[in-house]
Amino acid sequence: MRSYSTSILAHLFGIIAIIFMLVWLLHYREGIEYDSDFPPRVFNVHPFLMFFGFIFLVGQAILAYHTVPGTHETQKVIHMTLHFIAIILGIVGICAAFKYHDMVDMADVYSLHSWIGIGTFCLFGLQWLFGLTFMIQGSRQSRAALAPWHIAGGRALFYMAICAALTGLMERYTFLKLLPHQRESRLINLTGLAILLFGVFVDMTVTLAHFG
Amino acid sequence: MRSYSTSILAHLFGIIAIIFMLVWLLHYREGIEYDSDFPPRVFNVHPFLMFFGFIFLVGQAILAYHTVPGTHETQKVIHMTLHFIAIILGIVGICAAFKYHDMVDMADVYSLHSWIGIGTFCLFGLQWLFGLTFMIQGSRQSRAALAPWHIAGGRALFYMAICAALTGLMERYTFLKLLPHQRESRLINLTGLAILLFGVFVDMTVTLAHFG
Repeated sequence: MRSYSTSILAHLFGIIAIIFMLVWLLHYREGIEYDSDFPPRVFNVHPFLMFFGFIFLVGQAILAYHTVPGTHETQKVIHMTLHFIAIILGIVGICAAFKYHDMVDMADVYSLHSWIGIGTFCLFGLQWLFGLTFMIQGSRQSRAALAPWHIAGGRALFYMAICAALTGLMERYTFLKLLPHQRESRLINLTGLAILLFGVFVDMTVTLAHFG
Repeated sequence: MRSYSTSILAHLFGIIAIIFMLVWLLHYREGIEYDSDFPPRVFNVHPFLMFFGFIFLVGQAILAYHTVPGTHETQKVIHMTLHFIAIILGIVGICAAFKYHDMVDMADVYSLHSWIGIGTFCLFGLQWLFGLTFMIQGSRQSRAALAPWHIAGGRALFYMAICAALTGLMERYTFLKLLPHQRESRLINLTGLAILLFGVFVDMTVTLAHFG
């Protein structure tokens, strides 16, 4: 399989991003806890679940067609199930941001990050429902006709989710009033780069597989 | 051509993004002038050239294979030439940011935006050189073998450039200390969304064309 090396790189950068983010949230920041009375701990659930719970799992679901051994039907069920788990964890992650805004009395959904994030997530839900409907009900022909649109739309949404993550990191960086040459600033930048490269290598794997 | 509708949407959102950005920089901000003594006017060259000069032209270069009538060779020359112009304008745009930093005595290249931007631009230059070398010197076989990598790499770089643009808008929004519900804030967010959708529809056109 020609695209094998890029899917390994995708895993590598995905895992690096998770580790960097955990070091950031657990060591430099206040920790991660949804039921805490301390607002920053509640907020930290948001970046963690949106990357590890949502983007990372969605990336794995996309890669499933290239990394999971077994029939196409098996891969399809894994693809669908991973997306379902990702959406559930994503909902919890989004709720954490709203809960935090309530606790500190901040406005909701005004930034570019939140517009991209909410828009992407809603379209993701629709894309999943359409995918499920056609998996269960669609004829062989209608499935074949819609597959290119499902793939093109899914790739676009994955890439929009990465944009949401990077704008979110920029927003948090500003909110925390970090200084440019502080260690934590560099760690946040490196986390962003790892997230970006995870997206790049998932996307390259799909492109290369089309020529495979 | 199946991907026709998405390439029209790409053009639509690309043009909307240019118009929104011009309204922002000329009406709400100080205008655009590289040789000005007034630092904000120099800075404004940066977002304008990085989107209109670089990202928009790169998107057009990618779409050239699907929108320009004529032989594959003609499309290839247009693809290469548009990229060349984009790189030149991109260099001027990057110089404007450095010139501005010098004028107001600000640190260079510390933010996530600048890391993504500089990294993407350097890799873009390399990708262009490789592409040119193979266009001139490569055998038919070596070109066919490398085409999937050129396409996968090019798409990834285009998507990295969009991420650079969006993180850049977030950075400028913060720097200007705009308030959430100000008109200018909404205009910047809408510009960001238009840039994102330009990227989405260019990318979808390429995916759909692979199945075409």
